[in-house]
Amino acid sequence: MTELLSNYLGGRWQAGSGAGTPLFDPVLGTELVRVDATGLDLPGGFAFARGQGGRALRALGYRQRGELLAAVAKVLQANRDAYYEISTANSGTTRADTGIDVDGAIYTLGTYARLAAGLPDGRFLPDGEALPLAKDGSFATRHVQVPADGLALFINAFNFPSWGLWEKAAPALLSGVPVVVKPATATAWLTQRMVKDVVDAGVLPAGALSIVCGGSAGLLDALAPQDVLSFTGSAETAAILRGHPAVTRHSVRVNVEADSVNSALLMPDAAPGTPAFDLFVKELAREMTQKSGQKCTAIRRAFVPAAHYGAVAQAVGARLAKTVVGNPRNEAVRMGSLVSRAQLAAVREGMDALRGAAQVLHDGAAVALVDADPGIACCVGPTLFGLATPEAVRAGSVVHEVEVFGPAATLLPYADLPQAVAQVARGQGSLVASLYGDDAPLLARTALQLAPLHGRVHVVSPACAATHTGHGNVMPQSLHGGPGRAGGGAELGGLRALDFYHRRVAIQGAPETLNAL
Amino acid sequence: MTELLSNYLGGRWQAGSGAGTPLFDPVLGTELVRVDATGLDLPGGFAFARGQGGRALRALGYRQRGELLAAVAKVLQANRDAYYEISTANSGTTRADTGIDVDGAIYTLGTYARLAAGLPDGRFLPDGEALPLAKDGSFATRHVQVPADGLALFINAFNFPSWGLWEKAAPALLSGVPVVVKPATATAWLTQRMVKDVVDAGVLPAGALSIVCGGSAGLLDALAPQDVLSFTGSAETAAILRGHPAVTRHSVRVNVEADSVNSALLMPDAAPGTPAFDLFVKELAREMTQKSGQKCTAIRRAFVPAAHYGAVAQAVGARLAKTVVGNPRNEAVRMGSLVSRAQLAAVREGMDALRGAAQVLHDGAAVALVDADPGIACCVGPTLFGLATPEAVRAGSVVHEVEVFGPAATLLPYADLPQAVAQVARGQGSLVASLYGDDAPLLARTALQLAPLHGRVHVVSPACAATHTGHGNVMPQSLHGGPGRAGGGAELGGLRALDFYHRRVAIQGAPETLNAL
Repeated sequence: MTELLSNYLGGRWQAGSGAGTPLFDPVLGTELVRVDATGLDLPGGFAFARGQGGRALRALGYRQRGELLAAVAKVLQANRDAYYEISTANSGTTRADTGIDVDGAIYTLGTYARLAAGLPDGRFLPDGEALPLAKDGSFATRHVQVPADGLALFINAFNFPSWGLWEKAAPALLSGVPVVVKPATATAWLTQRMVKDVVDAGVLPAGALSIVCGGSAGLLDALAPQDVLSFTGSAETAAILRGHPAVTRHSVRVNVEADSVNSALLMPDAAPGTPAFDLFVKELAREMTQKSGQKCTAIRRAFVPAAHYGAVAQAVGARLAKTVVGNPRNEAVRMGSLVSRAQLAAVREGMDALRGAAQVLHDGAAVALVDADPGIACCVGPTLFGLATPEAVRAGSVVHEVEVFGPAATLLPYADLPQAVAQVARGQGSLVASLYGDDAPLLARTALQLAPLHGRVHVVSPACAATHTGHGNVMPQSLHGGPGRAGGGAELGGLRALDFYHRRVAIQGAPETLNAL
Repeated sequence: MTELLSNYLGGRWQAGSGAGTPLFDPVLGTELVRVDATGLDLPGGFAFARGQGGRALRALGYRQRGELLAAVAKVLQANRDAYYEISTANSGTTRADTGIDVDGAIYTLGTYARLAAGLPDGRFLPDGEALPLAKDGSFATRHVQVPADGLALFINAFNFPSWGLWEKAAPALLSGVPVVVKPATATAWLTQRMVKDVVDAGVLPAGALSIVCGGSAGLLDALAPQDVLSFTGSAETAAILRGHPAVTRHSVRVNVEADSVNSALLMPDAAPGTPAFDLFVKELAREMTQKSGQKCTAIRRAFVPAAHYGAVAQAVGARLAKTVVGNPRNEAVRMGSLVSRAQLAAVREGMDALRGAAQVLHDGAAVALVDADPGIACCVGPTLFGLATPEAVRAGSVVHEVEVFGPAATLLPYADLPQAVAQVARGQGSLVASLYGDDAPLLARTALQLAPLHGRVHVVSPACAATHTGHGNVMPQSLHGGPGRAGGGAELGGLRALDFYHRRVAIQGAPETLNAL
């Protein structure tokens, strides 16, 4: 039997009382470890987090909590090699893809540690100036943000076991709110190891960070009105969580970041031969293959002027053809595997749906795997689909609705820009859209048109060819989230992330009272 | 048969095809008008609001939309006498209580019209400065707020048919988001008349303001992901709305403002004979009787030092005994009626629950009504309940949980301040708490302790005796809402209210692109 990973709850390590759910190496098919949360006292553990953890965190100021984040980052940095090994084993990722998850987490923690230095020293965040409510100034209103008096429960996705924890935990801990994380089972090992390292290092107060691995049964029942819930994953699960009485009856604040059918848009001025055209082709191929397409932010729909449809298909196909797929332990491999058999089946099903609705412009189905057994490894080659005409794009629905959470995208020709913008909107709200062109006023105008349906608009022009941070790469300085299908959430965006973990309150009183806050 | 009020939807007046639900005079028992929404094409009407209304509003800038608000306020001001008559007839309110609803609405519209003058002239709100994401400055991120590309549906409460519409519509329209209001049936007349006057005056673009009177069936089914929903009313209805697929599956943004068991706290230093003591007594009696206690923000739990329990009971009782209850058309009457037989029954039921759990310190059950038939009028006298000891306060649960939405409150003695704060927290989140004392540092410290569980903390000290705006009075400059039981919402707070009607988005690009926004 493989090791049964422990949960950390109520300030102590506790094994579940069940047999456990095994985690696998998706390339080799071997069992790695098991997780289980059966029999845990969740209400007791949550009360400990709120009481011990929350109180200890809020006894510190923002700057001191920023120092805690720096200490956490240092612990993770020191154990980085182990995380790379676990990620390769449990997520089937290449070193570069592991880096996005592991180094991205350390960078995000470091960013919030630095932001903390600019925060006030007190116990709350000022929110604007006091405003008089009486003509003689004897009564006024002042808004402040105070840390939520509860805990933050994270129910996380399988594709970022490291970054997914820390991009949420950094603003939560900085806000003074203790964290309980429930990682997705398939890749829970890396999250559990990181929490273990941080707990063992003793850099956080008891109760500030807890982890429950395994099923999510009972987690929401243990929430109290002052807690917050942050979920990353499927729209289906999000709907179940949002329908729970903790949310509907007790107003537990929820943030949802769900998959979305993100768009990239080659602008009308970006003909073949222009730098913007090349940037688009490069970015689309990268987005399709990075992390084997398992990013919520990845490009799923690529809009191009109808006249350039063939040229784009040819150029992207050429790049995809050069992508070596297989065992990430082989240095020649550029794209590893999906995280599990379940994901492999889901991706194949999604690709079949697209196959029925679109042309196949580059077929990855028959790609030869390097150092991996096609009967065992959860590897799949990148596949580019396409609809041949703007009319087909307008008539089609599957490509605007189905998100294949793997190395797949669809090329969609457009007749003119207003039509392209209207078709992008058929995604019903996305995390990100990107634009590629060299006409700054037109790029700005189009970005604003797309803005209401997106959490982020990423504009690539030759001026930032070498420095743009990538369509799908989430920078802690920028908002992450999106309306509608994308879940309606908002994470990161620098200090904006702290809003979710604070309560805004108006304090009305005489100036001498407000000045004494 | 009484008049069947029309609905305004899809840019035209439409009568429902059903027999209609009658609205009554709660004092005289006479039928006034009827409302009905049967057979309306809600999806078509909503599409008209989004398309025609939204587009027309967003073709204007913030300052121009601020001028629309001023024009709406002018229309309401011109028709103010009619509103007073309707309010007295349909809500049973005294002139003073009508003023809170009607003049409060006009003041709120005026406040947002003035705030608009300070907004930028463009089509979006800047949100912070651009931040470089590349060391050489060639790539950066900039956040903006853009108006939501949908409509705002308001499902409103019966107690503020005027203010309840305009305190939400002002920030929505200012944001460029069209409004559809569904007033509570019992008092829908005033809302409908105001919308009618504004529509007839032609001061808003077609589709910017619509009203559906009657049942709420089908309203949420007609929502799209880019819409927002703002609800004021009971926690039970809130739970149903939040469980609707529009919210759980399509991420329609929801704001809930639910009833709450608000607290007032007489500080330990405010002994009988001090100005703070008198301010507390006056405010408690006023909060119990104003609008017959039908305010979400009214004081329900009044915490006092145990030593002063008897003195407070005596002083508040003396004020309540002087409250003349009955027909608001009689100028001697200080407190009118509840809005309906249903509310009268609910208030009596709630008072019975309190009667079973607490002492009656002042009994309004047998009050003699002026100019009103006790067998017909929905009038009820103010009743002060009490628990005699701090131990009883700790042991009790009904008084912390049951909100009687009428002229009732409970006096709760405390042994020391930490105990009082802990007992206030048993309300599980409230709209407002108020403090009464004369020790500024202690008031400030206590306000911050109460802050995480409240949307507003109102501090009354002798320095603002003559100018404080009242525990239950919602000023547009201050946040209105509260966590947990209070619904977790946030309204008003000056320009903070615009957040709900905007989408925050990060735009990443080269400086020349970001400068062109």
